[in-house]
Amino acid sequence: IGAGDSGTRSVNIAVIGGDGIGPEVTREAVKVLGAAVGTDAFTTTEFDLGADRYRRDGEIYPADDIAELAKADAILLGAVGAEPGATDVPSGLVERGFLLRLRFAFDHYVNLRPARLFPGVDGVLSESITNEAPIDLVVVREGTEGLYCGNGGVVRAGTPHEIATEVSVNTAFGVERVVRDAFARAAARNGHLTLLHKHNVLVNAGGLWRRVVAEVGAEYPDVTVDYAHIDAAMIHLVTDPARFDVIVTDNLFGDIVTDLAGAVTGGIGLAASGNINPTGAFPSMFEPVHGSAPDIAGRGLADPTAAILSAALLAEHLRLGDAASQIRDAVAAHLASGPGSLTTSQIGDAIADRLG
Amino acid sequence: IGAGDSGTRSVNIAVIGGDGIGPEVTREAVKVLGAAVGTDAFTTTEFDLGADRYRRDGEIYPADDIAELAKADAILLGAVGAEPGATDVPSGLVERGFLLRLRFAFDHYVNLRPARLFPGVDGVLSESITNEAPIDLVVVREGTEGLYCGNGGVVRAGTPHEIATEVSVNTAFGVERVVRDAFARAAARNGHLTLLHKHNVLVNAGGLWRRVVAEVGAEYPDVTVDYAHIDAAMIHLVTDPARFDVIVTDNLFGDIVTDLAGAVTGGIGLAASGNINPTGAFPSMFEPVHGSAPDIAGRGLADPTAAILSAALLAEHLRLGDAASQIRDAVAAHLASGPGSLTTSQIGDAIADRLG
Ligand SMILES: CC(C)[C@H](C(=O)O)[C@@H](O)C(=O)O
Ligand SMILES: CC(C)[C@H](C(=O)O)[C@@H](O)C(=O)O
Repeated sequence: IGAGDSGTRSVNIAVIGGDGIGPEVTREAVKVLGAAVGTDAFTTTEFDLGADRYRRDGEIYPADDIAELAKADAILLGAVGAEPGATDVPSGLVERGFLLRLRFAFDHYVNLRPARLFPGVDGVLSESITNEAPIDLVVVREGTEGLYCGNGGVVRAGTPHEIATEVSVNTAFGVERVVRDAFARAAARNGHLTLLHKHNVLVNAGGLWRRVVAEVGAEYPDVTVDYAHIDAAMIHLVTDPARFDVIVTDNLFGDIVTDLAGAVTGGIGLAASGNINPTGAFPSMFEPVHGSAPDIAGRGLADPTAAILSAALLAEHLRLGDAASQIRDAVAAHLASGPGSLTTSQIGDAIADRLG
Repeated sequence: IGAGDSGTRSVNIAVIGGDGIGPEVTREAVKVLGAAVGTDAFTTTEFDLGADRYRRDGEIYPADDIAELAKADAILLGAVGAEPGATDVPSGLVERGFLLRLRFAFDHYVNLRPARLFPGVDGVLSESITNEAPIDLVVVREGTEGLYCGNGGVVRAGTPHEIATEVSVNTAFGVERVVRDAFARAAARNGHLTLLHKHNVLVNAGGLWRRVVAEVGAEYPDVTVDYAHIDAAMIHLVTDPARFDVIVTDNLFGDIVTDLAGAVTGGIGLAASGNINPTGAFPSMFEPVHGSAPDIAGRGLADPTAAILSAALLAEHLRLGDAASQIRDAVAAHLASGPGSLTTSQIGDAIADRLG
């Protein structure tokens, strides 16, 4: 895997600003990373990819860029995607043709999404719930299988007798490797793992997930394991979110539950994620959970905190000393200080200054 | 369909108390219905079905009972299901072998789940959100297709090379009839319909749902239509739930979103549902969203309000005069009165008394 401790050699980070607010939040993330590890500790290479590139060149997955990206130690992504309803970019093209394709090509089987309610942040939940115990959880979402694999089809398209199918594919190989990752994270955190699924209806996939969790769990006697149906988890997340430590789940359930987990911990302005290949065979990619928000782009209104916390995940993945915890501490101190309303770059500066 | 206006003839309601707290909450629902329409307006027939029946007789879907049930004008169900981890009832047997099977057999293609935050009820959301505007929405969940159809399978079961699949089947026929129902409900309510899906990933099913919503929507020029991805809907429901009027979605997304909608409107102690066949070809079934909660059964601790509101949906479906709105008004007045902690039957009495 790309890097040793900070300082041993310069790390090469591919930066994809992307569309909308992507470039501006990414700029702040690079700024803060520089303040944490020193600007000599890494080099950046910019890649111009996403909806805007497609508009200009008709390219959504340019082979040359992908080959270059593959050489990076890690990728920092802002956000990609056209404005909703755009007519010059086919619906879903950027999501499927670029983002998901890259997750599959680089075998990002661990989609890591921490959710923590930082002190000082107003949540959406009533204080009677959030005052109970701190919300601090991590979702380990499978990133390469399930309903995201693009299987399925349409029969008699566009007719009153159309049939449309979607196939969720789950393999023991794919489930085991992500479950192993989740157990390792739980062991390194608070020793608790929750499997989310819907095994009472999805018996085939649910059976596989449960078997694998039981089998791998036998190797982690110190990790307590429980299970929640995805529907019940919705309730838990808004009534008792502190019950969760590490959640492991499939691609679609992970997509759904991480937006809710983000929403109850300060919103997606703060939610970071990593698309991780733990083997190091391909570079991992770190991105805010939020989208490109073209409506507010270029006006200094975007909150770069999610991008900055994504850079912290990158630093953790590349083992850049203790930069990850330093950045998180700086973000926490910044948020606790009651910063009021700041521009995108002011937020980046304020957090970088705490690392000075 | 079974019944005309209240008083023209006696309506026959099949009552399935079921397991755990099911019988005790159903008793209160029948009590309140009697107070609203008069006990002469309907007869009840009790059916003994669920996990307890299975334990006794080994029967989960007894043909004779199902044939009898089919003759009822409507079904009132408490809750079915064994305690989690029970070893004498196979996991998922009651859910799939009875509940889902009945939904399919009686072609309950509209799974109706209203969610309304009654004044006086403490929600889980911060007051800054719930004070903005009242939460009052209805989810129309498709009930007979999607990932619930039981397609899929396992290859090399139990081995390191297992493959488990689940197939979501969506037909134009199935989507259109539930979308029509949702538009009719939106037109009769506040004229707004939201489709929830994940069409950027589930392109086949998502394309079908979007096409049908657009086509049927052309017949309802006064209903405004929008769309949200299921993940984004998680955020909307906890940050701006008042934006929703009627939501239409597939079986699995509907399962997930209704638990969250219930949680933000006072919890599943209040969440009612109808499994409806609008054609009247089969009896519709009304049930609280909550489960059988065997841990608190028989102790007077269960809140019967969800069962009582399910009886209101039944009264609405059977067009029993204005009993439905009367019951809902009585529940609202009861909740607004700050009733404190009451037993199951005290709650039923308090609500029935307001109808007296
Ligand atoms: C854009 C979309 C394809 C993507 C997903 O569903 O994974 C996004 O929602 C996310 O969570 O990163
Ligand atoms: C018990 C289960 C099969 C059922 C479902 O998933 O539909 C329940 O969660 C519900 O929402 O009624």
